[in-house]
Amino acid sequence: MSRNLGFAIVPPAASSATDLATPLDRPAAAVPLPGRPVSIVLVGMPGAGKTSVGRRLAQRLGLPFKDADTEIEAAAGQPVTEIFARYGEPHFREGERRVIARLLEGPPLVMATGGGAYNDPQTRAAIRAAGAVTVWLRATLPTLLGRVAGRTTRPMFLNADPVAVLTHLMQTRHPFYAEADLVTDCLDADTPDMTAEKVATALAGWHPPARLPVALAGRSYEVLVGEDLLSRAGALMAPVLPARRVAIVTDESVGPLHLDTLRGGLEAAGFEIRTTVAVPPGEGSKSFAQLAHVLEALMAAGVDRRTAVVALGGGVVGDLAGYAAASALRGLPFVQVPTTLLAQVDSSVGGKTGINLKAGKNLAGAFHQPAVVLADTATLATLPPRELRAGYAEVAKHGLLQGPLWDWCEQHGARAVAGEADALRHAVLESCRLKSAVVAADEREESAEGGRALLNLGHTFGHALEAECGYDGSLLHGEAVAIGLGLAARLSARLGRCDAGLPARVEAHIAAVGLPARIRDLPRGFTVEALMGRMRKDKKVRDGALRFVLLRAPGQVFTTGDVPAAEVEALLREEGCAA
Amino acid sequence: MSRNLGFAIVPPAASSATDLATPLDRPAAAVPLPGRPVSIVLVGMPGAGKTSVGRRLAQRLGLPFKDADTEIEAAAGQPVTEIFARYGEPHFREGERRVIARLLEGPPLVMATGGGAYNDPQTRAAIRAAGAVTVWLRATLPTLLGRVAGRTTRPMFLNADPVAVLTHLMQTRHPFYAEADLVTDCLDADTPDMTAEKVATALAGWHPPARLPVALAGRSYEVLVGEDLLSRAGALMAPVLPARRVAIVTDESVGPLHLDTLRGGLEAAGFEIRTTVAVPPGEGSKSFAQLAHVLEALMAAGVDRRTAVVALGGGVVGDLAGYAAASALRGLPFVQVPTTLLAQVDSSVGGKTGINLKAGKNLAGAFHQPAVVLADTATLATLPPRELRAGYAEVAKHGLLQGPLWDWCEQHGARAVAGEADALRHAVLESCRLKSAVVAADEREESAEGGRALLNLGHTFGHALEAECGYDGSLLHGEAVAIGLGLAARLSARLGRCDAGLPARVEAHIAAVGLPARIRDLPRGFTVEALMGRMRKDKKVRDGALRFVLLRAPGQVFTTGDVPAAEVEALLREEGCAA
Repeated sequence: MSRNLGFAIVPPAASSATDLATPLDRPAAAVPLPGRPVSIVLVGMPGAGKTSVGRRLAQRLGLPFKDADTEIEAAAGQPVTEIFARYGEPHFREGERRVIARLLEGPPLVMATGGGAYNDPQTRAAIRAAGAVTVWLRATLPTLLGRVAGRTTRPMFLNADPVAVLTHLMQTRHPFYAEADLVTDCLDADTPDMTAEKVATALAGWHPPARLPVALAGRSYEVLVGEDLLSRAGALMAPVLPARRVAIVTDESVGPLHLDTLRGGLEAAGFEIRTTVAVPPGEGSKSFAQLAHVLEALMAAGVDRRTAVVALGGGVVGDLAGYAAASALRGLPFVQVPTTLLAQVDSSVGGKTGINLKAGKNLAGAFHQPAVVLADTATLATLPPRELRAGYAEVAKHGLLQGPLWDWCEQHGARAVAGEADALRHAVLESCRLKSAVVAADEREESAEGGRALLNLGHTFGHALEAECGYDGSLLHGEAVAIGLGLAARLSARLGRCDAGLPARVEAHIAAVGLPARIRDLPRGFTVEALMGRMRKDKKVRDGALRFVLLRAPGQVFTTGDVPAAEVEALLREEGCAA
Repeated sequence: MSRNLGFAIVPPAASSATDLATPLDRPAAAVPLPGRPVSIVLVGMPGAGKTSVGRRLAQRLGLPFKDADTEIEAAAGQPVTEIFARYGEPHFREGERRVIARLLEGPPLVMATGGGAYNDPQTRAAIRAAGAVTVWLRATLPTLLGRVAGRTTRPMFLNADPVAVLTHLMQTRHPFYAEADLVTDCLDADTPDMTAEKVATALAGWHPPARLPVALAGRSYEVLVGEDLLSRAGALMAPVLPARRVAIVTDESVGPLHLDTLRGGLEAAGFEIRTTVAVPPGEGSKSFAQLAHVLEALMAAGVDRRTAVVALGGGVVGDLAGYAAASALRGLPFVQVPTTLLAQVDSSVGGKTGINLKAGKNLAGAFHQPAVVLADTATLATLPPRELRAGYAEVAKHGLLQGPLWDWCEQHGARAVAGEADALRHAVLESCRLKSAVVAADEREESAEGGRALLNLGHTFGHALEAECGYDGSLLHGEAVAIGLGLAARLSARLGRCDAGLPARVEAHIAAVGLPARIRDLPRGFTVEALMGRMRKDKKVRDGALRFVLLRAPGQVFTTGDVPAAEVEALLREEGCAA
């Protein structure tokens, strides 16, 4: 009897980038919801049971079943062994790829593939492009040996030691099988029915990462948002990197927490980790000294132009590693694996990398876009509460830029700051969605008005406060931005640009999530003169005019150079700064 | 009586990039030769005599004469003053631009323009695009005052002090007039006939710089080769920069020789020079310390994203300043003004910038293409003979890559090394022509075979010799390349890839120009092991295989990773290296 378990998988297809005003009331792509069924592709070693499990799985799911090898033989009119012998492997793989792609073009089905099919990069790409879900039926050598024992007449075992043959195949193929979306272990005692049930359960519980495209001129990349991406890092990176070879840059705080997981995820997909460089945590590492240190370490490890630099950590690590990747051999591939909320919602997306100079923050660097961003929201569980809160300030900023996200913040932001996984996932996903769209429209911050400049909402004030505090940890960037958001709203109201009630509304939310909302919330004082001096040195100053991002309402923001200094000074005095 | 003086000007139109095999037996564009006459556009202040001189010049040249203002009035059916008063200046300038462009579309003529026409950037661009030659009739305030004395009924002088009006106009307009191709001074005593004769003489003696386009995806730039470009730097840069604002980077040897000329050339076109940074001469300046020094100096000078970094000097300055320009604020416009033969024929073209790491040369940097390269061959006269010879090694390399240029080298190379201006100009021009074409085809050195990699002919050996000598000045880069060219030919012959006589031919020419041609020409010894070790660390090594550029014949080169180490070792032993 055919049973449809009623599960369905939202395909991991790319969500489209949205403009600032897109409503958020539709379901986020990260959460599996009833949707159209998709094809399931089974991969794995000979003897893993792809065909027998596949038939049973198809029955459970109420889908048709196809065996790719059988279809190839039907199409070619000769056995697989014959095609191999007569035309060679490249010819066979080409035909196999065509047959698999054709089968996946039709209605959803369950498909068993030949053991070598998934080793072919173009076949893997075709399966991914078709939106199918790939399941690796993983079995140990003893299990496989037991199952193929009766079948040693297979051509591959003729005149050869099955242990040696299987061991060699497992070594070469496992890194590619590891790119499958799901892994199901097939134990010795498992019947095909039991394995089929395991696969069905795994499929039902599967939460694929959301994929947000950052569409740039000439090349694009994706921001992946989801849980447990570190352990699958190799599988997720391999399709977009030129080689399975990386150097990891992290810091001494993040390394002990996440490095082992990342390494495991990379090695599972056959990545070679040429070196791991850990810099001291904190803003001080965005320096020439640490840049030189990282670059020399990369060179000492013998990286070549196909070795990717992977940044594992917060904004400091991402900025430093990204600039090192841009500079080493004049440009290596780069991957961002942000582990802080601030980095996940802001600094890891957009390609800005760099270090600080004496004259100010981020004054030297490069636009160097990552090949992919892996925003693993599970890593946020390890963040100190203060850092999580500080990162949330950028979420609130994105909310004010976007509109509906601000309503979400007011309703659910406190849950994100409290560390609730679903709220954090939503906050990261929607922040990345907003930022990706803004970056795609203005990659190099060249738009005269609007564009990336809008992302500086709250930052003109924020940078000034942060600089006055000397980046010593007494005021975190996000905390400074939180106060800056309130000040931007107050300035907008003072200039008659927004509703008089907006500043109080912004500050109420900021305070509700435990962030400083007013300058007076800080334990130290500031002078108007000092803050004005800092603002006049802001990178965004043009022809001497202060530039601000102002609010009309949540979702309605604009840049302006037309703010009288006297108004800003009066505002700062009102906020308690010494004249 | 109309007299045609028989002079003609080769228009300064762009030469097209050539492939490696284009014969060189056609005249170089830098040398004025009989060609089609081009239009002459006279610009300058009211009272400079544009109309009266223009009529006489036209008569001398046998060309028709047009006065742009008269043509505008005819087209508009009303006087210029009326158009101005009724529709405003922007409307007038737009019409003026259209009329001037229409006049220049027709057969060659001499044209006088209104005093403000050349201030309009689009009008200047239209005149350049039409291939016309612009002449600025420059006069001092007293001269102008004398000439407009009788014409104070002009609207511009109504109710105003002529001295104040003219002084203000001169201040605002001279920077734009300075973009003219030629300047003729009009003295108080000069009659229009005398001035016309001066202009005709200047036109006859005019050598416009050759313009070689480097056509890249998305954006292109030109390499200008000619004499006395420094004194016209502002005029030549202004059309391709976002603002007339620069920071100059040079070294302590080059600065005293050329900085004043460059500054004068920039200031004549109204450029603001925000700062000048001079680093110590020599390879040691390609360091993080000097990069940081330059970047902090740029920031202290308050550069913004529209300020261009100008590199004045050799390869070290160009590489360092270019990387600083790429990094400052994540990318400033950049101009190369190479003053050594090596920089003019090689490092200034192609966008490679960077510094050295402990692990090797040029390991950190950026691809950052200049907005324009000004290769002023007059600066080569100040080079020490050894440096000129060393730079010539890259010319010889380009000859071997290109073919006919090698024949030219054998015939005329010694004249270039002896400092003869015409030979140097040809060497620079043809080297830049070759390099531009190679770079355009493979901007980021991504071509697997051929492409930019071919430019490494002689460099695998050369880099190893240079590294062994420790970059202490005992063996210059060009000297190492010279020996490397001979070794590449010897290796090619040993592997049966070229005529057995080629190595001797290459070495004979290298020796004839006074460069070291064999390892034994150096005052120190090398071991096979040390050189092999250096070569195995070369950036171009892939998967552990040594890569060489080999020769079939001059003009026929190829890259290969298929050279047995034993053959290279045997060659080095033969050349006298200790086993």
